[in-house]
Amino acid sequence: MAVVDLRSDTVTKPSAAMRQAMAEAEVGDDVYGEDPTINRLEEQVAQLLEKPSALFMPSGTMANQVAMLSHTERGDEVFIHREAHAYFYEGGAPALWAGVTLTLLEGTEGLFDSDTLAAALRPENIHHPRPRLVWLENTHNRAGGAAFGPELMGPVMDIAHRRGLVVHVDGARLFNAAVALNVPAARLVHDADSVSVCLSKGLGAPVGSLLVGPTDFIDRARRYRKWLGGGMRQAGVLAAAGLVALTQIDRLAEDHERARRLAEGLRDLGYRAWQPSVPTNMVMVDVDEDAGVLAERCRALGVLVSPMGAHRIRLVTHLDIDDCAISRALDVFHEMRE
Amino acid sequence: MAVVDLRSDTVTKPSAAMRQAMAEAEVGDDVYGEDPTINRLEEQVAQLLEKPSALFMPSGTMANQVAMLSHTERGDEVFIHREAHAYFYEGGAPALWAGVTLTLLEGTEGLFDSDTLAAALRPENIHHPRPRLVWLENTHNRAGGAAFGPELMGPVMDIAHRRGLVVHVDGARLFNAAVALNVPAARLVHDADSVSVCLSKGLGAPVGSLLVGPTDFIDRARRYRKWLGGGMRQAGVLAAAGLVALTQIDRLAEDHERARRLAEGLRDLGYRAWQPSVPTNMVMVDVDEDAGVLAERCRALGVLVSPMGAHRIRLVTHLDIDDCAISRALDVFHEMRE
Amino acid sequence: MAVVDLRSDTVTKPSAAMRQAMAEAEVGDDVYGEDPTINRLEEQVAQLLEKPSALFMPSGTMANQVAMLSHTERGDEVFIHREAHAYFYEGGAPALWAGVTLTLLEGTEGLFDSDTLAAALRPENIHHPRPRLVWLENTHNRAGGAAFGPELMGPVMDIAHRRGLVVHVDGARLFNAAVALNVPAARLVHDADSVSVCLSKGLGAPVGSLLVGPTDFIDRARRYRKWLGGGMRQAGVLAAAGLVALTQIDRLAEDHERARRLAEGLRDLGYRAWQPSVPTNMVMVDVDEDAGVLAERCRALGVLVSPMGAHRIRLVTHLDIDDCAISRALDVFHEMRE
Amino acid sequence: MAVVDLRSDTVTKPSAAMRQAMAEAEVGDDVYGEDPTINRLEEQVAQLLEKPSALFMPSGTMANQVAMLSHTERGDEVFIHREAHAYFYEGGAPALWAGVTLTLLEGTEGLFDSDTLAAALRPENIHHPRPRLVWLENTHNRAGGAAFGPELMGPVMDIAHRRGLVVHVDGARLFNAAVALNVPAARLVHDADSVSVCLSKGLGAPVGSLLVGPTDFIDRARRYRKWLGGGMRQAGVLAAAGLVALTQIDRLAEDHERARRLAEGLRDLGYRAWQPSVPTNMVMVDVDEDAGVLAERCRALGVLVSPMGAHRIRLVTHLDIDDCAISRALDVFHEMRE
Repeated sequence: MAVVDLRSDTVTKPSAAMRQAMAEAEVGDDVYGEDPTINRLEEQVAQLLEKPSALFMPSGTMANQVAMLSHTERGDEVFIHREAHAYFYEGGAPALWAGVTLTLLEGTEGLFDSDTLAAALRPENIHHPRPRLVWLENTHNRAGGAAFGPELMGPVMDIAHRRGLVVHVDGARLFNAAVALNVPAARLVHDADSVSVCLSKGLGAPVGSLLVGPTDFIDRARRYRKWLGGGMRQAGVLAAAGLVALTQIDRLAEDHERARRLAEGLRDLGYRAWQPSVPTNMVMVDVDEDAGVLAERCRALGVLVSPMGAHRIRLVTHLDIDDCAISRALDVFHEMRE
Repeated sequence: MAVVDLRSDTVTKPSAAMRQAMAEAEVGDDVYGEDPTINRLEEQVAQLLEKPSALFMPSGTMANQVAMLSHTERGDEVFIHREAHAYFYEGGAPALWAGVTLTLLEGTEGLFDSDTLAAALRPENIHHPRPRLVWLENTHNRAGGAAFGPELMGPVMDIAHRRGLVVHVDGARLFNAAVALNVPAARLVHDADSVSVCLSKGLGAPVGSLLVGPTDFIDRARRYRKWLGGGMRQAGVLAAAGLVALTQIDRLAEDHERARRLAEGLRDLGYRAWQPSVPTNMVMVDVDEDAGVLAERCRALGVLVSPMGAHRIRLVTHLDIDDCAISRALDVFHEMRE
Repeated sequence: MAVVDLRSDTVTKPSAAMRQAMAEAEVGDDVYGEDPTINRLEEQVAQLLEKPSALFMPSGTMANQVAMLSHTERGDEVFIHREAHAYFYEGGAPALWAGVTLTLLEGTEGLFDSDTLAAALRPENIHHPRPRLVWLENTHNRAGGAAFGPELMGPVMDIAHRRGLVVHVDGARLFNAAVALNVPAARLVHDADSVSVCLSKGLGAPVGSLLVGPTDFIDRARRYRKWLGGGMRQAGVLAAAGLVALTQIDRLAEDHERARRLAEGLRDLGYRAWQPSVPTNMVMVDVDEDAGVLAERCRALGVLVSPMGAHRIRLVTHLDIDDCAISRALDVFHEMRE
Repeated sequence: MAVVDLRSDTVTKPSAAMRQAMAEAEVGDDVYGEDPTINRLEEQVAQLLEKPSALFMPSGTMANQVAMLSHTERGDEVFIHREAHAYFYEGGAPALWAGVTLTLLEGTEGLFDSDTLAAALRPENIHHPRPRLVWLENTHNRAGGAAFGPELMGPVMDIAHRRGLVVHVDGARLFNAAVALNVPAARLVHDADSVSVCLSKGLGAPVGSLLVGPTDFIDRARRYRKWLGGGMRQAGVLAAAGLVALTQIDRLAEDHERARRLAEGLRDLGYRAWQPSVPTNMVMVDVDEDAGVLAERCRALGVLVSPMGAHRIRLVTHLDIDDCAISRALDVFHEMRE
């Protein structure tokens, strides 16, 4: 029986349409800016998010780290939630590459509020790093895929701008937020200075993220991307799949519905399964036993899940998870309970 | 009337004995290791803390940052209290110079406990920085000068070592802790891998800190000190004052007693003045009005204090603060209350 | 008439076979190590170069910078030719990411000799960075694609190892060297500690380089790749093209022959065209006029070339340059002469 | 018999006048900007060099590295002579702290000319670091203390400024240059954007250097100094000696005369002793035997010299070297010859 892989929406395999698009892609040397498919993808994403420019990246981590570098100088301070991906899962890259200090803030479901931010902003002083960047994440991964609407993010961005800071939104799963909230993605980042989005998660592309923002910012980003080794040649083969991925935004609603049913089913089985206030394609389950051991037991029964700390596992729905897979996963969790 | 300067114990002026020692100091070129007074000071401090080696530094910040650099490689993770001096007041230097990620931990009075540390240690994974260093501070500045005995620090150091991490103690005011706890300073850092101590705070030297630890660590530190620009020439003139400062450890008890009386006096006047469980030479006062404004009002009346956040001020006793100065300060606070 | 693009061998478009391979590639999530096509490519390249391990990279720059990071600690010294790609064309990344100092050495055709290296090695001293890595490039780009056999590289590697340094070979065009010298590529890097090779240059893959070396080195490299943002998901679509590229090594001889004829033809036309002692797929032409202006004139006539300094242009043959294209290029240079 | 220490002018011991000045210095907390002696020294040095602001530093290396940091952003390019102190003797700090790339230039006696600089400036391109800073050194240590007048430095500074770069002069021994050329020091740095000078070399202060330049630059420098750990407390004790040192500029002529006689005497003895075109207080001697071995032989006979490479030693005159010491040194070299 096929394995049900709920570890992440990054595991999706490219569809037949994507493979065909890759095989037929018109390409050029993107380091010279001559790959027409890359250029088309960058334009489409910039338009979709109503920002001036976009830049293709080999990963979400690079998109985030290039944003970090392009907004800051060494010795700057970045305000970020203590569970944010860019702090938690990117290997300490903000300190390592940009030399910036992360001031870790608390907040419900992965979002600090404007008062918390205001309280963390210290007066100008040579003992402190220079305050520069506010970092938000939508949807928020470690908060179980929580989506935030403009009414939540707006006040934080507002205080940031009034205090002279810039705002980046890590939107690796921004389109999940847009679909869950039934709001255009552009509306969610209207007041952000820059955004990163991934095509290789729920949208199903094999590789590819984009960094989006003002033209001068993207010019700096292009330089940092090259310096990090993210300048690729005939990358149009990847962008072709990315263009197909962009047509799949509405489909994310199906993942959300399946995640909802999965959470419900798990709770019916007696599991402490939860989703955030505005859920998307993730389900968190708090467990008594060691999460790593549980994940191994699941694997032995044909279901893959991710440990998220000592006593929590994460399940993510995506385009390779159909209704059958949900049923199969629930059967396995049922079996484990007995 | 003379100003009463309670901003910090860093403001002390060198005594006549120190000035004479400086004038008569035997010196040499310390970059060549040939300054006899520096060498004597380094030996004395190493002996006092029962560690193999010590290295003279122009500041506590440099002692701390050299410790950070000498214990880590780029991309390592450092576990540190979210109110620690090395995070809060050293300009983001750990990210800037060492490229290390600070994982900020919570804990009472500036000390996280061993469970908090254990929970923050994540399994080996390419998504995470490499866990490497646990950073403690004794006494703890932002916690109001809290001193921690071995029964509190021991378990944290123990879990650190059992998990393969090294431990540094920022002991800028370690001798205050030793005096307050009536325990030899060496006992407080017996299980630490390295320690930094300052001579220019309560001990009254004009300039000078030392980094103390194993010989191979100090060899690396000597290199980093040079690279940072901390290699000085006839630094023996400073070390001579430092040797006098070392004879002043017991005197710190007077500062502690005066701080206690200051706190009591302020509370009698109706101020929310507080000291930590094991107090030393600091008093914190929580206030309703803006701390910066209050500090200005104090200054106008001849008393200098430090704002420590929006609604808190800090008062520090030191060798230039006698009983008269305490009375004078209390008079001013009384006057402000009316 | 089609443009003849001699700017670089990076501009090649993927062949039909590559596109088909990409469309049919078996893939998985390479961040989890589960992409079978990536794994197969890494194994094949490691075997081909007779090294224990290999790691797929999105670019040659990333392969080089990850090598720089994985061999060094901050504050180390790297010995490198003053015309090396990693110094000249990678944006200063060695200082920026690794914090290492490049000691730039002189030498004929891009290769310093063992005496030059020995003379540059300074005695251990806190005033100096720590000597750590010797960096070689084969073929050497700015020297006109010069290939170096073991009799030239051996003594340099030997002195490096005897002095306790490690050796990396930037082999972006290593297979060109192997073909030109009629020596197995593995033989050329037998004594090197690590090697980077590109599939996206003469071999024609759209995207992809590999870093090759000992297993513990590659483990560190995997971490740095992730931190730089080079961890890609279903990267097997790229690796599939890379596997086809690996079958094209012998074909490089055709590029070399065409480059030879191009150089000869240009000299017959009176141009100062030259190739290094052991030439590969490049031709350099020294010109009196401004190289940028000349490149623009060529472009207007349908031939693309790269300026390499104020008065030099570079022409590179590759799989999209056939005999016809060579004739066409010579016609244009003839026309420009008149 | 007393040792004759010709290793460096850094070895001088503070004079009685300096020691008295230190003992009587009026001091304050310089981190708060309240040390009156530091403030006076900073003003005097700024005035002397006719620049707006100055900042006291614990070492010349820190003055240089803070200049490097305050002029650049990470990823910038610095043009510097391949024998410059900041490259050769500061441990690779420019890469380590500032993340800048040093482009090493050739030139006679430690000074590259304007053509060499112009040729090294590459057109704007994402493959290159951003050109930013031109670094000059006057006098030039490894060139044997060569002094450069405005007619030599002017054209280099001019091309730098016309190409949008800033210029720093490492003037650790700037006053030696001024005295040797009989030109005010201010004239030598009139067109430089910033200057570092040392008081602890020929001028005889135990510790202290200053960084001098525009006020906004010094504001940035103050921040970097703090972050590097160079913020000292009652540093006025050092500045007091520095103020005495500033009165000793004219005395440097004696060191120069003695160095001239030393060189002459050594040549008379058959040594290959040399000084640069405009000599100051250094003498270089090229030797057949290993320089380290020779230095040891000298030491055994009571004369200390510095090896400067495998077959060169350096002798430096300073205020602790009188005529007697020169005679004594020549006797020892005579003895060694036999």
